[in-house]
Formats: sequence, structure tokens, C-alpha cells
Amino acid sequence: MSHIVKDKLPGLALPNWATSLRRSALQEMLTLASSPDVISFALGLPAPELFPIPEYTRAVEHVLATDGKALQYGPPFQPLKMQIVELMRLRGVTCRQEQVFLTSGAQQGMNLLTRLLLAPGRQVLLEEMIYTGFQQVLIPFEPEILTVATDLRTGMDVDAVEALLKSGARPALIYAITEGHNPLATSMHPAKRVRLVELARRYGVPIIEDDAYGFLSYEGRSEPPLRALDDQWVFYVGSFSKILAPALRVGWIIVPEELIAPLSVLKEASDIDTSTLAQRTISAFIESGRLSGHIELLRREYGARRDIMLRALHEYFPRGAKWAIPGSGVFIWVELERSGDEYHLMKTAVEAKRVAFIPGHAFSVGEYRARNQQMRLNFSHCAPNLIEEGISRLADVLRPE
Amino acid sequence: MSHIVKDKLPGLALPNWATSLRRSALQEMLTLASSPDVISFALGLPAPELFPIPEYTRAVEHVLATDGKALQYGPPFQPLKMQIVELMRLRGVTCRQEQVFLTSGAQQGMNLLTRLLLAPGRQVLLEEMIYTGFQQVLIPFEPEILTVATDLRTGMDVDAVEALLKSGARPALIYAITEGHNPLATSMHPAKRVRLVELARRYGVPIIEDDAYGFLSYEGRSEPPLRALDDQWVFYVGSFSKILAPALRVGWIIVPEELIAPLSVLKEASDIDTSTLAQRTISAFIESGRLSGHIELLRREYGARRDIMLRALHEYFPRGAKWAIPGSGVFIWVELERSGDEYHLMKTAVEAKRVAFIPGHAFSVGEYRARNQQMRLNFSHCAPNLIEEGISRLADVLRPE
Repeated sequence: MSHIVKDKLPGLALPNWATSLRRSALQEMLTLASSPDVISFALGLPAPELFPIPEYTRAVEHVLATDGKALQYGPPFQPLKMQIVELMRLRGVTCRQEQVFLTSGAQQGMNLLTRLLLAPGRQVLLEEMIYTGFQQVLIPFEPEILTVATDLRTGMDVDAVEALLKSGARPALIYAITEGHNPLATSMHPAKRVRLVELARRYGVPIIEDDAYGFLSYEGRSEPPLRALDDQWVFYVGSFSKILAPALRVGWIIVPEELIAPLSVLKEASDIDTSTLAQRTISAFIESGRLSGHIELLRREYGARRDIMLRALHEYFPRGAKWAIPGSGVFIWVELERSGDEYHLMKTAVEAKRVAFIPGHAFSVGEYRARNQQMRLNFSHCAPNLIEEGISRLADVLRPE
Repeated sequence: MSHIVKDKLPGLALPNWATSLRRSALQEMLTLASSPDVISFALGLPAPELFPIPEYTRAVEHVLATDGKALQYGPPFQPLKMQIVELMRLRGVTCRQEQVFLTSGAQQGMNLLTRLLLAPGRQVLLEEMIYTGFQQVLIPFEPEILTVATDLRTGMDVDAVEALLKSGARPALIYAITEGHNPLATSMHPAKRVRLVELARRYGVPIIEDDAYGFLSYEGRSEPPLRALDDQWVFYVGSFSKILAPALRVGWIIVPEELIAPLSVLKEASDIDTSTLAQRTISAFIESGRLSGHIELLRREYGARRDIMLRALHEYFPRGAKWAIPGSGVFIWVELERSGDEYHLMKTAVEAKRVAFIPGHAFSVGEYRARNQQMRLNFSHCAPNLIEEGISRLADVLRPE
């Protein structure tokens, strides 16, 4: 099912990491899961029916009709940076537009920061279960990976972070998803946030804070991110993908002003600039006053979907299965009271019951030590009327045969 | 004027290459040159007044109105790949859609290919004068750089390439700009193309062929690129930036099918995907049948601007200045019959005469050995009625005081 590049192009001398890249069993399965008759809780996709298409169309028409530079290369669009500074206030963060760096989505933000911070072979400090996209960023660096556990109620084990740093570890970066954790759906406890930032400062280790889901909160506002506590050691990554639309490919990072220049060189070498048209269209959309209303709409709608999924889990899932109520993000993390091959479970779910999830294993950094089967369930993408049906099908798969 | 990051963030341990990144004198000057009263021949920008704005607006309206997935994440858009296969026929290249990989512009194509091919510290083989964007791509790898000269009539010194390979050099890649060379405005002689490809094959060295300007030819069609001669060792890089608009950030590479999988991992780690909206809008634009007509328009218009600039150079520039007539691309390369600091010349041109160019030195890989001052002049961006005035001002700067 998978293949190794080296075998196919014998003459080509690729770096070590590249020759071992394989298409994973997970990827094969996700291709299967994208079939229209599959109810998919697999990916962290926004709900397409909620995209503000008429408003976005008006914004792009306005920009193309009035701004002769909209299709040209261009420097980062200052008005958008100022709008991001305002947006960050909603997350409790004070920053200046000189600290805002525009990227082609949050993924590029993490990629550029990592390339800036991480020399090949150095250490990085991660949780044991994290967003796969950040794991992919790390591959070419072949870093020494240090991990800490995550408490499902309070987030990253900051005691373990301290123990590692005290014992001499000096990672080039710490990766933290403080809100709407992907995949664990946790929100980091406020006291842990304070301690983690203190450690970063004391030991001089920068934190990449992935806040892609921070605006999507369902129990009032999310806690302020780490960046609200420190503007020198916390490098914040945000995105319009989850609050507006992924296809715009616009995100931002907030960093000490001194890092803007080297990041600009890396960015220029990566893709020259972030689409001028997308930057200006988003700016026009925000200018029209519709973004905060749209975020409120998403919080209501996704909150409702979360609740439908929680009720369905309660009704259909076997006793012993455990999950927490996520206060933010787009995932519910479920631990089952059964062991066995998670990929086999996923395969059965997709093939026999036309329902998909992502197995916990997929998010594991290094060795996967879970005793019980785990699954990440997304509740943002699937239309509300299909959520109950999907959870009920999934429960069928879990029934003892 | 420039600064080093290390001085400002004493606690932060950045990789070696990052601590020495500086904003160059050139970049400072380009900021000055972007003032509206400066006639700029500096950057390789398309003419904004030729962007097909009404047609592109109709295409984006059509896509947003009819395609519910246009704002979502998405896999590469197959219809666009098929259209690129057709487009490549215009360049004399036969390829299959399974060999086409979509990127966020040509720059990302070069970046991903380099990250795939080049392990840190290995060799690369370059011409002495090349596109600065590719030099930026190389910085973090700190490669051993081997260079060969370029003949201003026939392109890359392929004898020198052979001598290096014969003497044992094994670069991870050769970078070639066969058509509309940036900055030297050469087109590689057909016989050299054949020999270069034979060398690549014989010694097992892949060629990254940067064909960003290949469609912009003014004396009939350009020669077919290296990719027309070999489909295993030539990795072709193309772009919609110069034939449609840069702000779409869509380009493509053509590679052996076996490389698509590892490139997909690198791409996903870089920015997840290329804007679904941009991909589908370009596809709709091509579907409307307007791309080939637009390319013809650009060839006529840029050809006329080239001729105006050539006439003005002939009329105003001092005796002894030399240039060739470029058959493709958007640059004229001028060698003056005078020595001295090129940056000083640029500074004087911008400050005293409000006209800008890029000094030859900026494109130099390693040591810059030119005896005489050299300049790259762009003829695509500046409106025709300003080209003569700009060249005349530049000639004033060159007059002996």
C-alpha cells in the first residue's frame, strides 16, 4: 500500500528523511472516507454551507473593481495587519502591527517559525499527541524529540516540561496548542499557562503557540492565549481558515519585531508573498463589519453541532467510553473501554458502516502507548442532521460481535 | 542600515544562517524606488494595466456561485492539471497530468524541489549570475556552491559543467534558466540544451529548470525547454504569475510521477494546499478560452516595450555600453564601459534622477568579478510612454561629470 521513493528512482540521491516518506495507511483510508456516502468526522474542516459566499463575493468584486494593485505582487497589506491587531484584542492580546507577519495560512506560520528556530538535529519539546501538520514540519530537520503528557482536563503536563528543562534539556522550541487542542480537545488551565510562559522565559526557550481554533469557543470567550502573558518568548500563530475560509490561505503570526526581517527572507524564499488579492479581499470583508458577526455565527452553529454529537455519544456509545465536553475547537476526543488495532477499527467503520474518524495513533509523536482505543471526532464539518446518524453507525461498529 | 538579529534577541539561539540575515542595501534602495515618482526598471513585475480584470472577475464570480467547495481545503484540482498539460504543449513539452504538481507559485516549486533534493552541506551547481529568489532558497542549506559562467549569446557554459562533473563533482541539483534568463536575458542555445540534459542523465544529477518566462517570447515561439528532452532528470517549474497574475499564487512543477508523493508531504507541511479558489478560478478562466489570447497580448505588448527600450538605449546610452536583444523574458542586460560601485550608481539614479534599475552585483553567486558596471533593466512593468523618459534619465546619470 505504501511505497518508498528510493526504490523507484534508483539514480536520485535524496536526503535520508525523503527516502522514507510513505503514504500512510491513514491517508489511504482518508481517500476512501472522502466518498460522498461516508459520514466523515475525520478531518478538521469548516462547514462549507456556512461560508459567507455572497459577502465574500461582494468583497472580491469591490477589490478587483477599485484596486489596480490587487493582482500584482505586493508588500504585506498594512490595513489587514491593523485589523488583525484589533482582532487579537478579542483574544485578550495586545500587540502592534509591527509584530504581525502575514502568512499563507497557519501551517506556513508554523513552518517558517520552525525553519527559523530549529537547526537540524536539535531538540524540540512536544506533547505526546499533537496536530499531524506540525509533525510533518519537523520531519526534514530530524530533531531529537522530547515529549510530555497531556492531562485531558488541564492540558500539557507543565511539571514534566520543568523537569526536562531542569535536567538540562534545551529545546529549540516548545509547541503548544492552548485552546481547542488538536486532537485532545483540551483547553490549557490558566495556571499552567502562567507557569509555561515563566519556564520559557527562565530557560530562554521560545513557544510556538498554535491558536488556529482559539476564536471558536462555546462557553463564553476562551482564555487569553500564552501570547497575552509574554511578547518575547511566545510566537503566536493565527489563521483565517477556521473563522472565514481555508481557500483564502491567509494566516498570521505575532512575533517580536526583530524577527520580522529574517522571517521575510524565509517567506520570500518560500512563496514570495501572500496573495495580494486574498489579503485585500479579507481586509474589505472585515471593513464591511461582517467578521465578528460571522465568528458569532460559527460559535452558535458549531456549539449546536457539538451538543448534538455529545448527546448522540451519550445515547449510542457503549458504557465505559469516555470524553470531555470541549469548550473550544472542533473536536471531541473519545477513549473507548476496549483495546485493539485502531486502524482496523477505522477500516471497519468506513467499509462496513460508511462512517469515518481519525484513530488516536495518527497524532502520536514517537511510541504510542495508549492501552485503549482512542478516536478524534470532528463536529464542525458534518451537517447537524447527519451527526446523530453517524454516531449511531459508529456505535454499531463498537458493539461486541 | 542593516542589522543582525542576534544582537537584538540575545537569549534566542537561532541557526547560524539565520543570525547573519541582513536587509540588504539593495532592499533599502528598492523601498526608495517604489515611490510613485520613480520610473522603475528594477523588478520583474507584470504590467498591471494588462491584467485581465473583467474576465478574471467573471471567472471568480462563476466559481463562487456554482462550486460549493471553492472556499474549502481541497486536493489538487484535476481539471487544472489537465489544462496545464495542454498549456505545456505550447512549449513543446509532452507530459501527463500525473506528473503535474500544483504549487503556490514558481517560487514554491523551486523551494519544494530544493528541500526534496538537497541535504544540508551538499553541492549545488549554479551559473554565476542567477535569480536572487533561488539564492534565498539555498541559504538555510549552506550548500557548497559550484558555479559556471554564462555566455551572453548562448547561455550556460556547458563545457564547464562537464568539466566539473568529470572531475568528480556530484551536485544535488543543477539550476537552469533556459529561456528569458533572469538576469542575463539569454536563451540557451539548442545544442547546449541537448548536451546539458545528456550530462544530467549520464552523471545522475537532476536539473531544476526555471521557466517562469518561457511563454513570453518575441521572435516566434521559444525553444522547447529542457523538459522536452528528458522526463526523468529535468524538473520543470512553471507559473501563472507572469502569464496571468502574480496575486493568484499558482504555479506548477512537472516531475517524475514517483516524486509527487514526497512533494505532497513537503507541500502539506508548507501551506497545506494551494488555494482551492485560485485553482478553480484559473481553471474557469482557461476554460473560457481566454488564456492563449492573453499570452499573445502580452507577447505583443511586452515586445513593443522591449523595442522602445532598445531604441532608447541606442539613442541615449553612452558609446561602449553593450546589450543583446532578448528573444524572451522581461529583461535587458546592459554592460557599461565604466567601472565603479554599482550600488552607488543606483543610489544616484534613484535619488538624483528618480529612475531605478538593479545592479548586476545583486544577482551574483559568490564573488562578483565583473570589471565593468552592469545593470538589469525590466521592460514589462513600466508604461510605454515612460520607458524612453526613464532611459534618458538613466543616461544622464551615466554621463561623465
